[in-house]
Amino acid sequence: MGDQTFLTELGQQLRVDSVRASAAAGSGHPTSSMSAADLIAVLLAEHLRYDVTQPHDPNNDHLILSKGHASPLLYAALKAMGAIDDDELLSFRRFGSRLEGHPTPRLPWVDVASGSLGQGLPIGVGLALAGQRLDRIPYRVWVLCGDSEMAEGSMWEAFEHAGFEHLDNLTAIIDVNRLGQRGETMHGWDLRAYSDRAEACGWRAIEVDGHDVDAIDDAYQQAVVTTDRPTVIVARTRKGRGVKAVEDAEGAHGKPLPDADEAIRELGGERDLTLSVAKPESRGAPHRFEPRAVAWPRYEIGGDPVATRKAYGEALAALGATRPEVVALDGEVSNSTHADLFAEAHPERFFEMYIAEQQMVAAAVGIQVRDWVPFASTFAAFLTRAYDFVRMAAVSRADIRLCGSHAGVAIGEDGPSQMGLEDFASLRAVHGSAVLHPCDPNQTAALVAAMADRPGITYMRTSRGAMPTLYGPDEEFAIGDSRVVRGGDAHDDVTLAGCGVTVHEALRAADQLEAEGIRARVLDLYSIKPIGGEALWAAASETAGIVVAEDHWPEGGLGEAVLSSLASEGSQAQVITLGVREMPGSGKPEELLHAAGIDAEAIAGAAWRLLGARATSAHAH
Amino acid sequence: MGDQTFLTELGQQLRVDSVRASAAAGSGHPTSSMSAADLIAVLLAEHLRYDVTQPHDPNNDHLILSKGHASPLLYAALKAMGAIDDDELLSFRRFGSRLEGHPTPRLPWVDVASGSLGQGLPIGVGLALAGQRLDRIPYRVWVLCGDSEMAEGSMWEAFEHAGFEHLDNLTAIIDVNRLGQRGETMHGWDLRAYSDRAEACGWRAIEVDGHDVDAIDDAYQQAVVTTDRPTVIVARTRKGRGVKAVEDAEGAHGKPLPDADEAIRELGGERDLTLSVAKPESRGAPHRFEPRAVAWPRYEIGGDPVATRKAYGEALAALGATRPEVVALDGEVSNSTHADLFAEAHPERFFEMYIAEQQMVAAAVGIQVRDWVPFASTFAAFLTRAYDFVRMAAVSRADIRLCGSHAGVAIGEDGPSQMGLEDFASLRAVHGSAVLHPCDPNQTAALVAAMADRPGITYMRTSRGAMPTLYGPDEEFAIGDSRVVRGGDAHDDVTLAGCGVTVHEALRAADQLEAEGIRARVLDLYSIKPIGGEALWAAASETAGIVVAEDHWPEGGLGEAVLSSLASEGSQAQVITLGVREMPGSGKPEELLHAAGIDAEAIAGAAWRLLGARATSAHAH
Repeated sequence: MGDQTFLTELGQQLRVDSVRASAAAGSGHPTSSMSAADLIAVLLAEHLRYDVTQPHDPNNDHLILSKGHASPLLYAALKAMGAIDDDELLSFRRFGSRLEGHPTPRLPWVDVASGSLGQGLPIGVGLALAGQRLDRIPYRVWVLCGDSEMAEGSMWEAFEHAGFEHLDNLTAIIDVNRLGQRGETMHGWDLRAYSDRAEACGWRAIEVDGHDVDAIDDAYQQAVVTTDRPTVIVARTRKGRGVKAVEDAEGAHGKPLPDADEAIRELGGERDLTLSVAKPESRGAPHRFEPRAVAWPRYEIGGDPVATRKAYGEALAALGATRPEVVALDGEVSNSTHADLFAEAHPERFFEMYIAEQQMVAAAVGIQVRDWVPFASTFAAFLTRAYDFVRMAAVSRADIRLCGSHAGVAIGEDGPSQMGLEDFASLRAVHGSAVLHPCDPNQTAALVAAMADRPGITYMRTSRGAMPTLYGPDEEFAIGDSRVVRGGDAHDDVTLAGCGVTVHEALRAADQLEAEGIRARVLDLYSIKPIGGEALWAAASETAGIVVAEDHWPEGGLGEAVLSSLASEGSQAQVITLGVREMPGSGKPEELLHAAGIDAEAIAGAAWRLLGARATSAHAH
Repeated sequence: MGDQTFLTELGQQLRVDSVRASAAAGSGHPTSSMSAADLIAVLLAEHLRYDVTQPHDPNNDHLILSKGHASPLLYAALKAMGAIDDDELLSFRRFGSRLEGHPTPRLPWVDVASGSLGQGLPIGVGLALAGQRLDRIPYRVWVLCGDSEMAEGSMWEAFEHAGFEHLDNLTAIIDVNRLGQRGETMHGWDLRAYSDRAEACGWRAIEVDGHDVDAIDDAYQQAVVTTDRPTVIVARTRKGRGVKAVEDAEGAHGKPLPDADEAIRELGGERDLTLSVAKPESRGAPHRFEPRAVAWPRYEIGGDPVATRKAYGEALAALGATRPEVVALDGEVSNSTHADLFAEAHPERFFEMYIAEQQMVAAAVGIQVRDWVPFASTFAAFLTRAYDFVRMAAVSRADIRLCGSHAGVAIGEDGPSQMGLEDFASLRAVHGSAVLHPCDPNQTAALVAAMADRPGITYMRTSRGAMPTLYGPDEEFAIGDSRVVRGGDAHDDVTLAGCGVTVHEALRAADQLEAEGIRARVLDLYSIKPIGGEALWAAASETAGIVVAEDHWPEGGLGEAVLSSLASEGSQAQVITLGVREMPGSGKPEELLHAAGIDAEAIAGAAWRLLGARATSAHAH
């Protein structure tokens, strides 16, 4: 059979198998798969360069299904490529199946999870940046986008960045099937609306009939030969294409076809075509940077105070020398986060993402697909902008490191919009995450090194203001541990716990309590998740109780992490948690710490309340 | 003095006062203020219609400082307008001052907080929608934007929506001063880059020299007379304009000028011009919709199961009839959240925001500025996309209601990308928020009504699957309360607590335990924040302990809210918390609840562990 016939037949097979998988599951998105079936058939048969038997071959192209709900189409394609068999196809959406409702990397041919719209293209930008600037081999990145998701600002961050970076190894394919979940999109079949916007961002735009296999083939060919800018294929398609009962019909989104058998007949019945995807022509080895020996930053106890954000930058720059797979990204605040120190030392591995935090985190996810080790930084407050991307990075089983600087009321005059008082809560509630907050430059540096080796999402909060050095430069700090900074024997009366600035406040509180005849143990809970439980449990059993102070809202942060850890051990310790309970304003750091009730005075007062409660309780016995 | 001279002098005065305020504070963003001083001088003197003595006059124009770090400029303008005096100007950034580092509505002339870039314009879209479709009076919305923040996708969501909605009452002013915090923006002084993108989104774009007061005046005049589309003024400016030491210089962002006295001399010295802002010409009353009497939804105990998302939509539609100030927004999933029921009943007050959750929440914030009562809905998972906007809404002291549907592993086959297992944690960690999760349709309806009257950020999670009706249609449910669903006397052995689907699982667990000779009290903690503490403290003292089960990650959710509440009372109750600890896949709801260890079987097992621990502990005594 001729190419055109084969491609048309293959498209029909992908439709039939999408219908079959969704019918077997009793749910799914067959109509959203059917609109894009010809686009995928031509791409896989004619243009993708991919070794199905070696999904991690560095020379492979990457295909990202930004419209993740079209998963039946992807799975139908994997069956045609011989990656999965028909039985597995029909396990779609069943408990235990790798073929989840939306794709995840449980399938080795899937780089990243999708299903939260607007993420595939910005992640594709990250992969294309990796190809262009890190790996330096000519793999292409193809991203199948829905038209509905073009309403997400993150898509336009991606268009903006890809145009600015001249990513000619990136092709976006917009499946303009006109219909969203509940009705028509803003632009319907107005292909120009998309082309105009993309061209304004420096892209080449090619409009095609998304069911004309020759036209699609031509468009992909033009995308491949276009240099110096990315290409978007804006394809007019029909949702549910090929089955009258659902074609271009409202109310047919996200459900199996009403009569699957009839639909399969209408589509020409089941087929068993084999799709042979061409292997990459290039066999080049990815570029690797040379390691260099550098001195690891060391800070002396009693030296000048150092901000942990500064130590972050110094450690990251040093790590980048010895670990050439480390890369850094920043959201146009590198002179504040001190990612600028990495940028100066390793300009080839630094990515300026401008004020586009969603694109920044997405790029980190894309870059780690190729086994680079990304660290992405901005103010802690502004990582909230990318929260959905962090959440999805966990579903992608991505290994990324995030740094949020300038958090807490301790930043002072800039005010609450800049304080990021929700970072512990929001980032603890990400599957498999670690949440760190050092109080000292040596500790910061040690944890930066540990972050590089940790799988999953690892977050560090750094502080704006300089702090005294508490620990020597050779001390070791593991993620999941804690440190007794003061006291530690059976004579301690009470425990004061904190992280970051509140460790220093707790130490001052301990001085004050000592003058009042009370011995306080001070715990540095720098690893908020996983929390350093053993020192905590010891403190719970050995002292009258624990005061936990944090520069964070009372909900979901260190205080509750402590309570959870103690509850999991069945501890009945008395705990008082101090956090920021009223909306802060501007002021000096010490004024704001005092107003929030998390300074030394408040901590000492809480310790007295604990001891008083214990005395009363002992008296009652 | 002639108009041109006056405007030029006024611009210089705004610069001088920006320099003075920042010098007095020892921090701040004078250079970012100086670039936009002429733009603001001309706007306020010639085009803004605003009664400074009546900041809440409905006919007032609205000015939003999207580049919130230019707060010295705003405060200098407020001084020139006579709203604040010079002493207050110089209190900038001091503890207790209303003149915070970034503007907040602690000042009555400020509608919304800014300082997280990329939010002012989408909020302005909300205000413009309110003017066009709700209030129906001709106030204008003016938004001063920075060029750096144009990298935020949320700005392009705003351009897209404003163009689509033909918001000719909206003017964006981009202060293209070329320099971001750490260096040049993507586009430098390429004004065309911005104009092209805006025009592609259906805007009129006017490029001007942002220091030519006549040209600025003309541009504003054209914006005012342009109909059927919004206008963007793309203004070429120089950061730090007028002071050689900092003008167009890198490294001068976000800090006072090196020599303020010299700078003030260079700017021509202090001035004391009075800026008289014209009052609104229109004195029309805002449109108000007519209330209608409708039946409140009622669900009978023992009737067909009803999904709480359905009850949300039915209650919201009913509420919209009796409360004509209620409006609804949805992120293109209204047929899932059931905001569609409101849309059908009250099409004039329904806003389709397409898949742009940031714009959706921003629009809700803008709409509530004009005292409308917005409810915004999407899947709980996708509210994460707007987390920064929710955080900032709290700084804005905004009153908005959010509904996140389809949360939890109980959604089943769609998989983890759609599950929203972090909503309790992230939304508890918003200042002043309430977090609700009903388990029954009557409870849902009662809480929807309560949400309308609650100030601040109020969030409700609704569920996908239908649930039995537990409560009668006349029962009352207050935010901050809880309900004992089963047991409740001194004979109860153990307490099982949950919210939403886990209430039903706890009831099944109680049945199972009863068959095993154990009496379980079941608590419905539908108000997760503020939590219904009294029933909890009673359960803690009257039973052997509490099992808390939630369809949420273990961090920051109901379990930790319970632990916090108990700790605040000094309770030493034993608590076992059950949450989703492994990454879920697809499957049937009951399979996923079982796999996560939050179904009836797991809850009953935990109750046995608690009772066993207590028996052992009693034995040890």
